[in-house]
Amino acid sequence: MANSKYEYVKQFERENYLLAETWIVVRVDGRGFHRFSDRYKFAKPNDARALGVMNEAARRVMSMLPDIRLAYGDSDEYSFVFARDTELFERRESKLVSTVVSTFTAMYNMLWGKYFTKTPLDEEMLPTFDGRAVVYPTARTVRDYLSWRQVDCHINNLYNTTFWALVQQGGLSGAQAEERLRGTLASDKNEILFSEFGINYNNEPEIYKKGTILVRDLSILSGREGDQHERTELSSVVSTVGGGNGGEKRAELSQRQKQREQKRRRKAAIVELHEDLIREDFWDKRPYILL
Amino acid sequence: MANSKYEYVKQFERENYLLAETWIVVRVDGRGFHRFSDRYKFAKPNDARALGVMNEAARRVMSMLPDIRLAYGDSDEYSFVFARDTELFERRESKLVSTVVSTFTAMYNMLWGKYFTKTPLDEEMLPTFDGRAVVYPTARTVRDYLSWRQVDCHINNLYNTTFWALVQQGGLSGAQAEERLRGTLASDKNEILFSEFGINYNNEPEIYKKGTILVRDLSILSGREGDQHERTELSSVVSTVGGGNGGEKRAELSQRQKQREQKRRRKAAIVELHEDLIREDFWDKRPYILL
Amino acid sequence: MANSKYEYVKQFERENYLLAETWIVVRVDGRGFHRFSDRYKFAKPNDARALGVMNEAARRVMSMLPDIRLAYGDSDEYSFVFARDTELFERRESKLVSTVVSTFTAMYNMLWGKYFTKTPLDEEMLPTFDGRAVVYPTARTVRDYLSWRQVDCHINNLYNTTFWALVQQGGLSGAQAEERLRGTLASDKNEILFSEFGINYNNEPEIYKKGTILVRDLSILSGREGDQHERTELSSVVSTVGGGNGGEKRAELSQRQKQREQKRRRKAAIVELHEDLIREDFWDKRPYILL
Amino acid sequence: MANSKYEYVKQFERENYLLAETWIVVRVDGRGFHRFSDRYKFAKPNDARALGVMNEAARRVMSMLPDIRLAYGDSDEYSFVFARDTELFERRESKLVSTVVSTFTAMYNMLWGKYFTKTPLDEEMLPTFDGRAVVYPTARTVRDYLSWRQVDCHINNLYNTTFWALVQQGGLSGAQAEERLRGTLASDKNEILFSEFGINYNNEPEIYKKGTILVRDLSILSGREGDQHERTELSSVVSTVGGGNGGEKRAELSQRQKQREQKRRRKAAIVELHEDLIREDFWDKRPYILL
Repeated sequence: MANSKYEYVKQFERENYLLAETWIVVRVDGRGFHRFSDRYKFAKPNDARALGVMNEAARRVMSMLPDIRLAYGDSDEYSFVFARDTELFERRESKLVSTVVSTFTAMYNMLWGKYFTKTPLDEEMLPTFDGRAVVYPTARTVRDYLSWRQVDCHINNLYNTTFWALVQQGGLSGAQAEERLRGTLASDKNEILFSEFGINYNNEPEIYKKGTILVRDLSILSGREGDQHERTELSSVVSTVGGGNGGEKRAELSQRQKQREQKRRRKAAIVELHEDLIREDFWDKRPYILL
Repeated sequence: MANSKYEYVKQFERENYLLAETWIVVRVDGRGFHRFSDRYKFAKPNDARALGVMNEAARRVMSMLPDIRLAYGDSDEYSFVFARDTELFERRESKLVSTVVSTFTAMYNMLWGKYFTKTPLDEEMLPTFDGRAVVYPTARTVRDYLSWRQVDCHINNLYNTTFWALVQQGGLSGAQAEERLRGTLASDKNEILFSEFGINYNNEPEIYKKGTILVRDLSILSGREGDQHERTELSSVVSTVGGGNGGEKRAELSQRQKQREQKRRRKAAIVELHEDLIREDFWDKRPYILL
Repeated sequence: MANSKYEYVKQFERENYLLAETWIVVRVDGRGFHRFSDRYKFAKPNDARALGVMNEAARRVMSMLPDIRLAYGDSDEYSFVFARDTELFERRESKLVSTVVSTFTAMYNMLWGKYFTKTPLDEEMLPTFDGRAVVYPTARTVRDYLSWRQVDCHINNLYNTTFWALVQQGGLSGAQAEERLRGTLASDKNEILFSEFGINYNNEPEIYKKGTILVRDLSILSGREGDQHERTELSSVVSTVGGGNGGEKRAELSQRQKQREQKRRRKAAIVELHEDLIREDFWDKRPYILL
Repeated sequence: MANSKYEYVKQFERENYLLAETWIVVRVDGRGFHRFSDRYKFAKPNDARALGVMNEAARRVMSMLPDIRLAYGDSDEYSFVFARDTELFERRESKLVSTVVSTFTAMYNMLWGKYFTKTPLDEEMLPTFDGRAVVYPTARTVRDYLSWRQVDCHINNLYNTTFWALVQQGGLSGAQAEERLRGTLASDKNEILFSEFGINYNNEPEIYKKGTILVRDLSILSGREGDQHERTELSSVVSTVGGGNGGEKRAELSQRQKQREQKRRRKAAIVELHEDLIREDFWDKRPYILL
């Protein structure tokens, strides 16, 4: 009963190795979260608990996979940006996507009770996610990807904020609110919020307007890790890489430098930001993210 | 602040639509389950509770996705075989893989406490899975795939049963048991089990030797669904399709027949088998699986 | 000056290995043949010389690649159907497509003067072709592919025959003929041809109506190859494979049988047919093609 | 006899759209050119006529496809580098590869007689080529690809020059020459050439040592195209794109600028170089190639 007779079927398996020297983004999306948020009575337009679960789940995924350089999320989706030179799972698409999705799902389910203390999960409607991997060939395209998601967050949030003001405070039905908003511009919605409900959209919480960015903070290095030697080295890495040759020539770090660099990233605290990542400024301050 | 400026990045996303008219198999595998089974003190060589979680999680996945025709699992892996003509998620690879993996993960985490009543999950080590999709062009190759997995189950189980008998009853260390088994054939292992430990491998539980097969039982139709009319129709479907033209020409069922057929599958009880699926016999009795 | 410093770029190359146990069809299409046929004054609606070049070029490709089981062509396109178990170039897509396209192009250019004796090729407008590979998982789908091409040939030929009758004999301009034919059915075109120009479409040459099929004639075996022994063997192969197990289980020929079988195919004469390949009959007579 | 019944088979066709914003390189390779060069008695180690056919065929391919920015060839291979933003054939892999291969094949066959005036092609052994497409995500990787090919040219040429000196002038058999060269370094081969045959490898023709580079010369603009206005514009394009933002942000040329730019490239003379393209210098002088 040798196995060999059937082993030929392995030839049907094929791997998609994602193109080397490109940024891999894995995005997870909640499956059927419209219905899911109804079932669990999410606050509208934003539920702080639900964002709490998402953000903490994403942070855990990021701690487990040190090659993730940045994560961005809002609503029921999260994007994880891997280092351009990651060799995780040999860059095999299915491994990357399924591992991120499975880890995110397990974390989300586990963390639920911490944020929704009075609403246990019903086994007939568990939170699940699908996922995909996309590769971006340049720093510009990966930044534009993130800008796309952040603009999307803003557009949806302005719409939802206005929609729910009309419904919750204005007494309109959902259909009426939808009708009222049809064809309106951003300025119209701002005006409705301000003149009818006294809401200045600019004062809404940044987490709702900008979403959540997770990055490893390489500037905050405490205790032994933060000594002068390492600081100097890091900044020399940054200046070497950024300089002169079009940003495309990867720094030729010695193997030892590389390992130290990886260790540093692994140890770095993951910080949560709710900022504008579209502006140059965000990236100028953190050149090491898209190195 | 139109979204269009960044929307061009969508062009980088690409879908892999799995080849039409082939059987899609999605296999999920436990990530790091060697360490996981140590951490949660799984009984060796087999832990009935752990198989219970796997089998029930797989069953739930199968109920939620009616296009799954059969599932086969053992140890920490499960394979889901979709109908050849499934159009689920337009056959997009990432959607199929990530949805199955996420649902399986959520179910496994949720069901854990039902089987491991005294061992709650530690949030530092949650069960997660990776996954992949493979397409098989013929009924023969998909059967050979399943045979390959079942042979693998048998080989591993015979090895593990002998290994743990040597350790648990024979007092050998792991290294000694490994050494003892190096180069042995199946017959040698059977002999060790029998002469040294009085174990007749043939009498070991079928679930350990054969793994678990989940199928929809179309022969058991209760109440209104089981009336004579439907029985007749089903058998006519089977005989139409199986006959004469090489099994490759798909039955040209009328749209209405198809819908009734789908409804029937959805309603059919999912049964758990621990049988030999390598033999023709298994398939002769269930021609509707690989229709 | 070791090569190794740059050799890392090889990792960017990737091969698409076409799915095993499926039929690979490579189709070549003339590039810009509308303009090309004007430039070289092809007779309308059909130019026998141009079809002669196409058919002979295809035949040469087929002799050079014995794994091609059948070729079908009409107008400026040709489809080559490879054996389901071909391992040519390890089934690498780019190798298969580029080799067929390059060989076809070289042959077409070389053979041109044999058919267009008075019209040498102008180096500013050489005949070139593009190509693609498609895999079909079942005999049914590969047959339907060929039927699709043959129906297309018929539809185009009926249209073109009527169009050019209206122009050449009816004195209409191209635009007028087009207008006249807008929205007409096959029966309308047949009627125009018959009542206005005395042309019975059914009597048009089969090569124009059906296109050209190239197959290896395994039934005509001359001399030593055709002895009784081999005939018997072949028919036993056919009956083994066709019988009983759904047509999907490939005959388990002994290695020696396989080699003899390959040699036979290589030696077999390639014959040119202009028949209906949509009918069962065509395939019943030649079961060895899609074995 | 509607076509629709069979048209479903089109769903089996799938296109591979090569990743946007990456450099596509299509490389063609002679098929069986070892045997081919024997058959047509190529001079050894290099045949100027054969390189002439290759180079002119490549030049014609490049004139027909203005999106090719540079071509590099030696021996029986040629690599064509497309503009990063090419939309030719919507970046479909099969179309790109098959079109380049077919055009190159037709040209090579046509041009043969111009260079091999006394050796007509034998229809039993026509020159054919296979091809592949590879995408490179950065200017650095595409440059490294070209360096890889040029280093390869050098290594092969040094070997072949020494091998044939040993055979043709040294009277060794092929096997003896091979044996003599086993394990030798570049310096050893240079020494053999110099001390035994009085050949200074550095004085060998550049075309043999460096291969052939084809580029459009945007600096030589004659007549109306070369006026001051256009020169200024081009240099401003170059400086805009090269500057400041890591070379990755593509110049946002107005649509009109783009069209003028394309026209300029189309009109530019294609020049043939036999230089070192590994050095920065080559690229500093021609920043517009990998723009």
